[in-house]
Amino acid sequence: MFENEVVKEVLNKYRRIWSIGHAMGLMGWDNETYMPPKGSEERGYAFAELSTLLQEILLSDSFVQLVEKAKNQENLNDFEKGVVRVLDREISIFKKLPSSLIYEISKTSEEAFHAWKIAREKNDFSIFAPYLDKIIKLNIEKAEKLGYEEEPYDALLDLFEEGLRARDVVNIFTYLRTNLKVLLDKVIMQNYFYFEPELEKIKYEKEKMEKVNLEVLNLLQYPWDRARLDVSPHPFTQGLGINDVRITTRYEGHDFKRSLFSVVHEFGHATYELQIDENLKMTPIGGGVSLGIHESQSRFWENIIGRSYQFTTIIKPILDKNLEFTKKYTEEELFRYFANVKPSLIRTEADELTYNFHILLRFEMERLMLKGETKVNDLPEIWNQNMEELLGIRPKTFSEGILQDVHWSHGDLGYFPTYTLGNIVAAQVREYLLKNIQLYDLINEKRFNDIKENLRELIHKYGSTYKPKDLLIMKLGEAYNPEYLIKYLTEKYLK
Amino acid sequence: MFENEVVKEVLNKYRRIWSIGHAMGLMGWDNETYMPPKGSEERGYAFAELSTLLQEILLSDSFVQLVEKAKNQENLNDFEKGVVRVLDREISIFKKLPSSLIYEISKTSEEAFHAWKIAREKNDFSIFAPYLDKIIKLNIEKAEKLGYEEEPYDALLDLFEEGLRARDVVNIFTYLRTNLKVLLDKVIMQNYFYFEPELEKIKYEKEKMEKVNLEVLNLLQYPWDRARLDVSPHPFTQGLGINDVRITTRYEGHDFKRSLFSVVHEFGHATYELQIDENLKMTPIGGGVSLGIHESQSRFWENIIGRSYQFTTIIKPILDKNLEFTKKYTEEELFRYFANVKPSLIRTEADELTYNFHILLRFEMERLMLKGETKVNDLPEIWNQNMEELLGIRPKTFSEGILQDVHWSHGDLGYFPTYTLGNIVAAQVREYLLKNIQLYDLINEKRFNDIKENLRELIHKYGSTYKPKDLLIMKLGEAYNPEYLIKYLTEKYLK
Repeated sequence: MFENEVVKEVLNKYRRIWSIGHAMGLMGWDNETYMPPKGSEERGYAFAELSTLLQEILLSDSFVQLVEKAKNQENLNDFEKGVVRVLDREISIFKKLPSSLIYEISKTSEEAFHAWKIAREKNDFSIFAPYLDKIIKLNIEKAEKLGYEEEPYDALLDLFEEGLRARDVVNIFTYLRTNLKVLLDKVIMQNYFYFEPELEKIKYEKEKMEKVNLEVLNLLQYPWDRARLDVSPHPFTQGLGINDVRITTRYEGHDFKRSLFSVVHEFGHATYELQIDENLKMTPIGGGVSLGIHESQSRFWENIIGRSYQFTTIIKPILDKNLEFTKKYTEEELFRYFANVKPSLIRTEADELTYNFHILLRFEMERLMLKGETKVNDLPEIWNQNMEELLGIRPKTFSEGILQDVHWSHGDLGYFPTYTLGNIVAAQVREYLLKNIQLYDLINEKRFNDIKENLRELIHKYGSTYKPKDLLIMKLGEAYNPEYLIKYLTEKYLK
Repeated sequence: MFENEVVKEVLNKYRRIWSIGHAMGLMGWDNETYMPPKGSEERGYAFAELSTLLQEILLSDSFVQLVEKAKNQENLNDFEKGVVRVLDREISIFKKLPSSLIYEISKTSEEAFHAWKIAREKNDFSIFAPYLDKIIKLNIEKAEKLGYEEEPYDALLDLFEEGLRARDVVNIFTYLRTNLKVLLDKVIMQNYFYFEPELEKIKYEKEKMEKVNLEVLNLLQYPWDRARLDVSPHPFTQGLGINDVRITTRYEGHDFKRSLFSVVHEFGHATYELQIDENLKMTPIGGGVSLGIHESQSRFWENIIGRSYQFTTIIKPILDKNLEFTKKYTEEELFRYFANVKPSLIRTEADELTYNFHILLRFEMERLMLKGETKVNDLPEIWNQNMEELLGIRPKTFSEGILQDVHWSHGDLGYFPTYTLGNIVAAQVREYLLKNIQLYDLINEKRFNDIKENLRELIHKYGSTYKPKDLLIMKLGEAYNPEYLIKYLTEKYLK
């Protein structure tokens, strides 16, 4: 896999950077799962020290020169080229961003996060406004430092989805907006996929739901000797190595599909990380290639498999055994509960048909922010107006409007579109699989390892060897194409 | 606390070393608690990289020179002196040991650990013998590199108990051997403290025993916002910071005192780390000062408090509520079960009266090994003979003889005596407390924070500010004195 001597030397030296990243990954996982609350102060210091250290090693003359040397080698194979591409990109990003700016963003977002929590709790945008204002200004500065061809948004977006431009996202949303609206109206008219008022409210015992989640992961052939499931306030996946990937879920005590589909969603992320070629472990290309591609894997499992009629059928016995209250609902009713459609104000509770409207809204808000012409205090009203235009409902509070997401308080602009990319690519993957395997039969037959095997060959095993766009073109024949998402949703919701 | 500008600069730079140590501490904790089994290979690489990195930063010219500069400052206060002493010691140890030797020991012990596990399982010493032979040779080399005044053992012992010499340990054991033997014979004659055959065999449910342990920790006022309890194959304490200390226990399913007193033991270790002065956090003196002093705190809580009649009385309701089968035993019977005395072959199962004989045996074996004259294949027979001489019983298998402990397979010689030091210092602490507070009344009244407060003032708050011997002399008026251990045991077992 790696034969070039210079690249091998790079990988040897990279092991140290990987190790610091591994440690920070574990610290991040621990922060959300097991760390006693008062440990956060010392943990924060350790985190800051290690991230500075990692950056110093990455930007050290000897390492940069070695990567430069590797870049000039001839006849590199794809994996070797991938290593050089990823490192070169990381180095150039860090080189462009002054450490004072990185520090300022990190410090601001720490304060902003606390302010956001209070603001959301008190439904008072004015508490968060000055921080958001500062974050916008810092992100404009960041975009300028990073550089871009067409607009500042490109620079930030590229950090999350290498090679994607705002223009691409605009095209995607132009297509989606029209087509999703038509579809949504029809589905709402039919009023079939609206079955939740009762089931959402039924309370469950945490212990019983835990058993459901474990049995569902067993059904999906989750490899427990290489992976974990834990509990955290917000579900996430943490890959610590090719043989150590950890997912979390949460137990809110009611509306059990939320806990269940968090598990299936994170299982999708985890499966990506678990199926990367073992030879890529501890290398710069040994992780998922982009947020969009990663999200395509989680959405594929959560929505396309998890919220399918077939999957509902095979997990019903697990639900009935452990939760009992599901017994009085038919498979069809449960399916309608899992795949329900209802315009709502909160992104994380949105269904498959309305979800992308929430992202479109945020994408437009972010581009507006980056233009630097809108006053921060005008943003909530713009949000509300857009929301009304898109989904016909209007937030009554800031907390169910502009204050609902944590992302901006973390200092990140440009992240949201990757969620929609995930939906789009998931549908492309489905289309590809339907041509090659009997996807829904395999679900019925519980042959999930067969599905995983196909995903491994299609996407997972390459890690970050290829740019996300190149990988899609190479394996699916085209890059982000939203048509398959509309096709899939039409088949699912209007058949 | 820290006023000297040079020392403050040292501490500032040390923050990075501390952070790497913090990360490695978390990785070590995770290895034993939550890491999926197949994660161990990548974890091992990360661990090796970080420990080399830590060493490089510690030994970097700029850091060494800064410590040297701090050493030459005048009018340093005790804490500043402590910082310089600890760093100077660490630097000098690493400077003396070639990294090739450190690597060789670490590599050998990794292989030796696996060989030991198989050897113990198969009861076949010959599987472990070549590794033990190599470990002995490497430790002789290590001792030579470190240097010593009287004998090689001194060099290794000093790593675990700064300032202690083999000669001191010989004196301690000479005294203990005679006096413990007399005491042991009397106690066995009386046959009062032998009450276990039934209780040892009764099975418990893990969930119920977990509740017991949690309630006992609540009783001891364990600060859950700064500390944790988890499960691991071998109980241990991991301090990750002054506000993040974690203990573990295990659940074997029978003989519940083992799980219970593991918790109380580790609680003692944790309390030490949790009560170090907050101003020492993230500094080189922000942890317990030596293994012996640390063990004194765990033994104090486990044996002197935990296995006392008073403690038995106050935890009986917790036991009866959760385990139920304890209801049919009186407080006195439970006390005799907790404080039972019976010569046995396995160190970790030994009682307070026979425990130190097990350590004496290992100490003598280790000194023999370091002389380099005994053939490794003769060691099991020497072990068995000594065991028979000391406790009148003879191992029938290697697994209940020389193969029982993990320590040597980890590459460590010189560690064992600190267990006996722990017992000795715990008794000295008891003696001190008896003169100053109504120790046993406080137990009866469940005023454990009062006891902790006294331990904080006596030992904990100083962290590693003073050498262990100096701390004992300063606070207790004398260093390791085994007389109080005999006094305590006599009062407990012959009253």
